[in-house]
Amino acid sequence: MKKLINKPEDVVAEGLRGMALAHADILKVQFGPDYLVRADAPVKGKVGIVSGGGSGHEPMHGGFVGMGMLDAACPGAVFTSPTPDQVLAASRAVSGGAGVLLIVKNYTGDVLNFEMAADMARAEGIEVEAVVTNDDVAVKDSLYTAGRRGVGVTVLAEKMAGAAAEERRPLEEVAEVCRKVNAQGRSMGMALTSCTVPHAGKPTFDLPEDEMEIGIGIHGEPGRTRMKLKTAAEITELLATAVLEDLPFQRGDRALALVNGMGGTPLIELYLVFQELARICKGRGVAIARSLVGPYITSLDMAGCSLTLVRMDDELLRLWDAPVRTSALRWGV
Amino acid sequence: MKKLINKPEDVVAEGLRGMALAHADILKVQFGPDYLVRADAPVKGKVGIVSGGGSGHEPMHGGFVGMGMLDAACPGAVFTSPTPDQVLAASRAVSGGAGVLLIVKNYTGDVLNFEMAADMARAEGIEVEAVVTNDDVAVKDSLYTAGRRGVGVTVLAEKMAGAAAEERRPLEEVAEVCRKVNAQGRSMGMALTSCTVPHAGKPTFDLPEDEMEIGIGIHGEPGRTRMKLKTAAEITELLATAVLEDLPFQRGDRALALVNGMGGTPLIELYLVFQELARICKGRGVAIARSLVGPYITSLDMAGCSLTLVRMDDELLRLWDAPVRTSALRWGV
Repeated sequence: MKKLINKPEDVVAEGLRGMALAHADILKVQFGPDYLVRADAPVKGKVGIVSGGGSGHEPMHGGFVGMGMLDAACPGAVFTSPTPDQVLAASRAVSGGAGVLLIVKNYTGDVLNFEMAADMARAEGIEVEAVVTNDDVAVKDSLYTAGRRGVGVTVLAEKMAGAAAEERRPLEEVAEVCRKVNAQGRSMGMALTSCTVPHAGKPTFDLPEDEMEIGIGIHGEPGRTRMKLKTAAEITELLATAVLEDLPFQRGDRALALVNGMGGTPLIELYLVFQELARICKGRGVAIARSLVGPYITSLDMAGCSLTLVRMDDELLRLWDAPVRTSALRWGV
Repeated sequence: MKKLINKPEDVVAEGLRGMALAHADILKVQFGPDYLVRADAPVKGKVGIVSGGGSGHEPMHGGFVGMGMLDAACPGAVFTSPTPDQVLAASRAVSGGAGVLLIVKNYTGDVLNFEMAADMARAEGIEVEAVVTNDDVAVKDSLYTAGRRGVGVTVLAEKMAGAAAEERRPLEEVAEVCRKVNAQGRSMGMALTSCTVPHAGKPTFDLPEDEMEIGIGIHGEPGRTRMKLKTAAEITELLATAVLEDLPFQRGDRALALVNGMGGTPLIELYLVFQELARICKGRGVAIARSLVGPYITSLDMAGCSLTLVRMDDELLRLWDAPVRTSALRWGV
C-alpha cells in the first residue's frame, strides 16, 4: 500500500487537523465527537445544514462546510457511518433557532445513525428534518443499502439547499429544495481500478488490467456489470444513457451536469468525458445549463468517474449560482 | 493502461474541447495553433499574461486562464513543449496595448520556444517580457533542464502577477512581481508511483512496491534519491527541510504554502501532509500566512505530492488575496 499517511488509524483525525489549519477562515474542527463546523456557527435565524458519512470521499463533506452550503459535516472512519453522537453534537452546534436539516446519503448505517441523532436533537427541542439522497441508478439494493445509493446528487443538493438557507427560508422550504434536487437528479459511476482502504492495506477488489466495473459504488461495492475496457466515448454513453433514461430527461430540459473524479483520475480525463457527455446531451436535446468537473465525491485513490445530471428550473439555477464559500466549492465571495 | 480516453493522439484536443464546453463563461479554446484564452481577451490597457507547457499537468495552465490570472495558456502535447506559433498566436490574442508577459517554466524546450515566440511578437511590435521560473530545489540540472526546474511556484506567480496586471500596472512591474515570487519561492516533490503517458501506454518508470522517489520531476524524471517508503511525517520533513533551508526561510518569515497533489493522490492525504508541514514550519518560526491544498500542477496519474513555499510580504499577500476567476482557482468573484 503506497499512501502519504502515518498510522492507518490516524488518517481521518490528521486529515481533519490539516483541513482546520488550511481553512481556519472558513471552518473549525471539533474532536470528541468529531465534526467540522462553519467558523461563524451557529448563524442566528438560519436553518443549519448538517451532512456527513464515511471518510475517504473528500472533499465531500468537510470541503463543503462554509457560507452558502453546509454548516457542519460529520466524518466517520473511512467508509464507515458517523455515529449518532457526532450528528447530535453537530446539530447542536449549528442550531441558530430556525431548525436543522440533515442531508443523508442512502446507506443503511448512515440512515439509522442520522435518524437516531434526529430523534435525540428533537428531544432537546431542536426542530429537525432529514432528507435522504438516493440518486444512483446503477443498482436497486446493494451491499450497504436498501434501495438506491446516495452519491453525486448529494453535493449538488447541499449547494442548493445551502443557498436556500442563506436566504433565510424556513426549514420546511430548505428541506423541500433538497428533496427536489434529489428527485430531479440521477447518477452512475464506473471504476478502472479499486481503491485501497488504509486499514485493509490492499485493494478492496481485484479488477483485471483489461476490465472495468460499470455502476460501481463509492466504497468499491459491486455495480451492474464488469466488462472489457472501452473508450471514453463508449463509457460515457453507457453511463449517460442509464442516467438520462431513468428520470427520464426529455428534449428541452436544462441540466446541471457533474463529471466527478473518483480520486485517482486526472482532470484531463474528466474534461474528455465531459465533452462526450455534452455531445450525448446535445443529441437528445438536453441543454447543459451549468456544469461542475472535478473530484468532488471520491473513493480514496480509485480511478474512475461518475456522472450526475439534475433537471434544473429557474429556482434551482438561481440557488446554484448563489455565492458559496467553502474550501472545495467557491464563487461570488 | 487504464485511462478514460479515446485515442492517445486525441487526448489533449478532446480535453481542451471539454474545458471550452464546461467553462464558456471564462475561456475560449482556439485550435490550429492551439491555445486557451480569456473569453474577454484582449483586455484593453492591461498587460496580457501567457503561460504554457506540456499537457498532462492539469489544471496547469488552462485551469488558470481567467480574470486575475492568465490571459492565455498554450498546451503542448503531453509532456511536450508548446510550439513557438502557439505562443505567438496567444500573445497576439491577449495583446491589449500594454505588452505581454510570458511565464515560462525552466525546461530547455519551453525556454527555447517561448524565446522564439517572444522575438517574433516583438518583431510585430508587441512589447514582450519573459520570466522563467526555476523553483525546484531537488536537482541542479536534469533530463530536460539546464539549471533548476520550474514547478509549483509557477502557479503562485501566475496568480500574483495576474493580480498586478488587473491593477493595470505596467509590464515592467508585472514582470517584477513574477520574478519576485520566483525568487522568494522554493519547491520539492516526491512520487509514490509512476505516471503513464497515453502514447507510451506503460508507466514511465518502475518504482517497487516498497520504494518512493524523492525530488521527482513533473514528467517522472529522476529526483535526488530513491528510498524505502516512509511515513507522511518523515516524507514531509524531507521535502520541507530541503525547501526551507534552500532560500533559506527564517524565523519570523510569513509564507504561502502549497501542498500539491500529483494527480493520483487523494485529497485526504494532502491535508494530512499539510498538517505535518504546518508543524514543521511552526517549529522553525515560519508562519503559514496563506495556503493552497490540492492538485494544481500534476503529472497525469502519478501518486505523490510536492511542497512549495513562498516568502510573502504585504504586497504579495495583497496580490494573492485579490479576486480571481478561473476554473481551478476562484475567489472574490
